[in-house]
Amino acid sequence: MNVVLPQPYLLFLGDTTEPGYAKTAFGLRDWAPERCIGEFSLPGATVTTGLPFLSPAQARNSGAQAMVIGVANAGGFIPPAWIAALVEALESGLDLVAGMHARLRDIALLRETAARLGRRLIDVRVPPEGIPVGTGKRRTGKRLLTIGTDCALGKKYTALSLARAFQSRGVDATFRATGQTGILIAGGGIPMDAVVADFAAGAAELLTPDAPAAHWDVVEGQGALHHPAYAGVSLALLHGSQPDVIVVCHEPGRERVLGHPDYPVPGLRDTIELALRLGSRTSPRIRCAGISLNTGKLDADEAARVIASESDRLGLPVADPMRGGEAFDRLVDACLS
Amino acid sequence: MNVVLPQPYLLFLGDTTEPGYAKTAFGLRDWAPERCIGEFSLPGATVTTGLPFLSPAQARNSGAQAMVIGVANAGGFIPPAWIAALVEALESGLDLVAGMHARLRDIALLRETAARLGRRLIDVRVPPEGIPVGTGKRRTGKRLLTIGTDCALGKKYTALSLARAFQSRGVDATFRATGQTGILIAGGGIPMDAVVADFAAGAAELLTPDAPAAHWDVVEGQGALHHPAYAGVSLALLHGSQPDVIVVCHEPGRERVLGHPDYPVPGLRDTIELALRLGSRTSPRIRCAGISLNTGKLDADEAARVIASESDRLGLPVADPMRGGEAFDRLVDACLS
Repeated sequence: MNVVLPQPYLLFLGDTTEPGYAKTAFGLRDWAPERCIGEFSLPGATVTTGLPFLSPAQARNSGAQAMVIGVANAGGFIPPAWIAALVEALESGLDLVAGMHARLRDIALLRETAARLGRRLIDVRVPPEGIPVGTGKRRTGKRLLTIGTDCALGKKYTALSLARAFQSRGVDATFRATGQTGILIAGGGIPMDAVVADFAAGAAELLTPDAPAAHWDVVEGQGALHHPAYAGVSLALLHGSQPDVIVVCHEPGRERVLGHPDYPVPGLRDTIELALRLGSRTSPRIRCAGISLNTGKLDADEAARVIASESDRLGLPVADPMRGGEAFDRLVDACLS
Repeated sequence: MNVVLPQPYLLFLGDTTEPGYAKTAFGLRDWAPERCIGEFSLPGATVTTGLPFLSPAQARNSGAQAMVIGVANAGGFIPPAWIAALVEALESGLDLVAGMHARLRDIALLRETAARLGRRLIDVRVPPEGIPVGTGKRRTGKRLLTIGTDCALGKKYTALSLARAFQSRGVDATFRATGQTGILIAGGGIPMDAVVADFAAGAAELLTPDAPAAHWDVVEGQGALHHPAYAGVSLALLHGSQPDVIVVCHEPGRERVLGHPDYPVPGLRDTIELALRLGSRTSPRIRCAGISLNTGKLDADEAARVIASESDRLGLPVADPMRGGEAFDRLVDACLS
């Protein structure tokens, strides 16, 4: 029932010269290298993922199933200069997957070409059909959810890092994607933010189905429980995913909610306590294993100091997954213990 | 930006013989008599609202703008036997409004007839286009939100009763509808449960815009903050509507969440405390004015006893709006104080 994407991918970089616009392509290269067999771009592009350059036909011959638009442009639309390359991909036997803001089906030539050739145009922002209402029934297997004190501070990255760390310890674990980039990385998932509100908890249940007792779903969080616009999505995901364990994600020094300067970022204690209280409704033994700090704006010494002092203050493991080390090992221990 | 319905209405009762299927029509007659100029039904119908029987053409001549399907049938669809009457309404100059499960635009003949005549087919379950993301910005005017310990226990009825009581005291008040029946009664509103999750708080903001300082929006609650399927909708509505006052609605004796027997209905204290805690994020001075009890299953003595004992236990005004009386007056006092 989840979206499942055709793969492996050829990554399309358009005519991009600004690396910031190619975050999706870089994320795929870093987190799903096994799904990426090459890149394709137009003359004038200067951004590269470092993967082999392949034409759509070469990629198809090497096994690619889809070309992923791994870049955005400033307007969030598909520029006319890209269309010929997208048509070429369809004609070479590849499906097209839109990774960011672009809407493939809004372009008549793509729609017609895909229909004629029997190719698919897949927009990862579109949820699957037929999502049921949540049931609240307990499911087998273990689940971890990343919870944020705000948006855009590392919930996806933390979930990916933990899933990878679980796997490297021989634990059977699956990263469960709830946003567009995560869905491309995982090769499937549900875009929680695009689900109709009444079905949001049901979507989270669907995303994390019954599993063997020792299996972990590691679920990408969305929004924040204190967020003035997105708290409903966060609560539906918390209720529906029924986490055994939460890891709270925070950026030290961020004092105001992104885009909502009237709202202070809540404290970690308050966030932990609220998440456990709300989460216990569907997952009675929910616990917080620790904190993931995004210390990307700090130097190594400052980061180590903040990580240690927050760990002392809260009595919990605290780590920056990006920096790894023993602190991260302790966080992983606490998740699995 | 809210849905605004064409009115006054002609109520369509189909060929219904079971009063339970005509709840929407009865609700409209009771709560929006000024919007209902008559009823129309097919031979064989035994259910009546008591309003004058008018053909669509007569209703149009009397000023009706739309015919509302005020009944459901057992399957939730529009039976073929109704179609000719619906076409007759369109041809008589009326728009069609679907009040319950029926989907007007799924019927080709209605779609074609409406297109040919320039009539509208309005499904009150469909949210307006272009709902923005929530901002969390404080707005002028006063707001009251009804909060439930479960679904289907009187949140709409309580909001309607309070809005009417406010108006009868000369207070400028508007009932704000968030569900299908409420939208028909109010002549507009937003079906919160059908809004995409990311925009749910924004929808609630849109529904309750800036208003004069002494004006009250009395907002129909949805779902319940402890509900395993719908808590996200409830939280988005709480955050977006920024209530100054909440009234918590409960049915004494209901021990299990409807349709979710594994889940106990939460206690009133717990519900009040959680709603105030969560609501204070966007409405710092939020308060609970009291409790609305649905005592429909109790006799008058039992109801009076439960109302008095709950009021003592909680230290708050408690009333059943359906029974009115001094208890309800005290609840209204507490809302406005």
